Amino acid sequence: MSDETSVIEGRNAVIEALRSGRTIERLYLQDGCQDGPIMTIRREAGKREAPIKYVSKERLDQLSETGRHQGVVALIAAYAYAQVEDILKAARDKGEPPFLFLLDDIEDPHNLGAIIRTANLAGAHGVIIPKDRAAGLTAAVARTSAGALNYTPVARVTNLARTIEELKKEGLWFVCGDMSGTVMYELDLKGPIGLVIGSEGGGVGRLVRQKCDLAAAIPMKGDIGSLNASVAAGILAYEIVRQRLTQA
Amino acid sequence: MSDETSVIEGRNAVIEALRSGRTIERLYLQDGCQDGPIMTIRREAGKREAPIKYVSKERLDQLSETGRHQGVVALIAAYAYAQVEDILKAARDKGEPPFLFLLDDIEDPHNLGAIIRTANLAGAHGVIIPKDRAAGLTAAVARTSAGALNYTPVARVTNLARTIEELKKEGLWFVCGDMSGTVMYELDLKGPIGLVIGSEGGGVGRLVRQKCDLAAAIPMKGDIGSLNASVAAGILAYEIVRQRLTQA
Repeated sequence: MSDETSVIEGRNAVIEALRSGRTIERLYLQDGCQDGPIMTIRREAGKREAPIKYVSKERLDQLSETGRHQGVVALIAAYAYAQVEDILKAARDKGEPPFLFLLDDIEDPHNLGAIIRTANLAGAHGVIIPKDRAAGLTAAVARTSAGALNYTPVARVTNLARTIEELKKEGLWFVCGDMSGTVMYELDLKGPIGLVIGSEGGGVGRLVRQKCDLAAAIPMKGDIGSLNASVAAGILAYEIVRQRLTQA
Repeated sequence: MSDETSVIEGRNAVIEALRSGRTIERLYLQDGCQDGPIMTIRREAGKREAPIKYVSKERLDQLSETGRHQGVVALIAAYAYAQVEDILKAARDKGEPPFLFLLDDIEDPHNLGAIIRTANLAGAHGVIIPKDRAAGLTAAVARTSAGALNYTPVARVTNLARTIEELKKEGLWFVCGDMSGTVMYELDLKGPIGLVIGSEGGGVGRLVRQKCDLAAAIPMKGDIGSLNASVAAGILAYEIVRQRLTQA
């Protein structure tokens, strides 16, 4: 866990962190532990929607920095998460049509950091990531974001497809990066928009893709399969930037 | 050196590697060593233009995997370098105006790998890197290039500014990424072109920048200083792709 800042371990320390309202990136509990303090931790975590993962004692030993985890390790977020509403408000405050990034399962912290950096410079109002599986706002992400995390709000949601549904009611359109889509230069990407970027391995998930209004392809002439996820996000984002600029 | 494949160490092993014609990424010699075998290594390295770096015994101890370096460690390239002429020939064979990437001092192997990957998919005919300082074709670069190194030739030159001069005689134009340049959408980037990308820290060096015909800026709306180098390379490259496509 050398790339993470804060690992909190041990039952009392974790209960205290939960009650103090610190943002838990992920809570690791030992498989089969069911005693009183662990049940308290599960209840507190449930109230705060902290993602729980059950793992073996060996995995906890790896995650632990002190070796005294007592069956529980919490990973603390290096940065606080924003709410989706904060992102929409940022757009309203600037008098601009919303421009959001939605990241479907980016697991590499370097890609996540680089994408937040791109979102900042492309003038996006915020980034939305799913709560489960994907990388969170750890110290490695903060570092590769080159300071962008201080400016660009990142919200974490339980269900990306549902969030897209809700944002459509706010007037947003959604475009996902998809190799089998329409060449991006031929799409109209102006107006309030959410750009959906998939993982390096699997692209945008089926459920999320079905919610998107448009599928944009980056034209590819080469011999290999795909671009690096953060590079692809940058290229798609800047096609949106170009269309927004030429609109004026 | 966990990210590199081949470290060859010890006098005989290095002399043998040099004589067998293997591409030496970099040759590390211990400061002050002047005896016969070391002079032989220097002479062989000179013939093959292998870059030599003089370092302390402590540095060699770090680089060494066996602890028996005898004052010399050679880093072997994971991939063979191409010649600049090979890249021009690739363009001619495809009947396309040349499209080259020139990387001024990209030191991060992950960025170098991602850029070679982008070069491949953007339809560039090859990548040129400088011999000194910059990252070479190590195993980490090969891995992050996602296979692109098997298709996209990479040439290594002694002096990037001089190479630009020579390529101008072949009819190429050169555009460098430069935040103080003209917004890229306003430039004509069609025709035979070399795209020059600078390092994350320092951008494109002064001498190289002076040789460029155009300076292209990526419009930036955000709060932080710059994009990740491989993301910036992708965005600039795809503006060239867009203009080439709309030309047809």
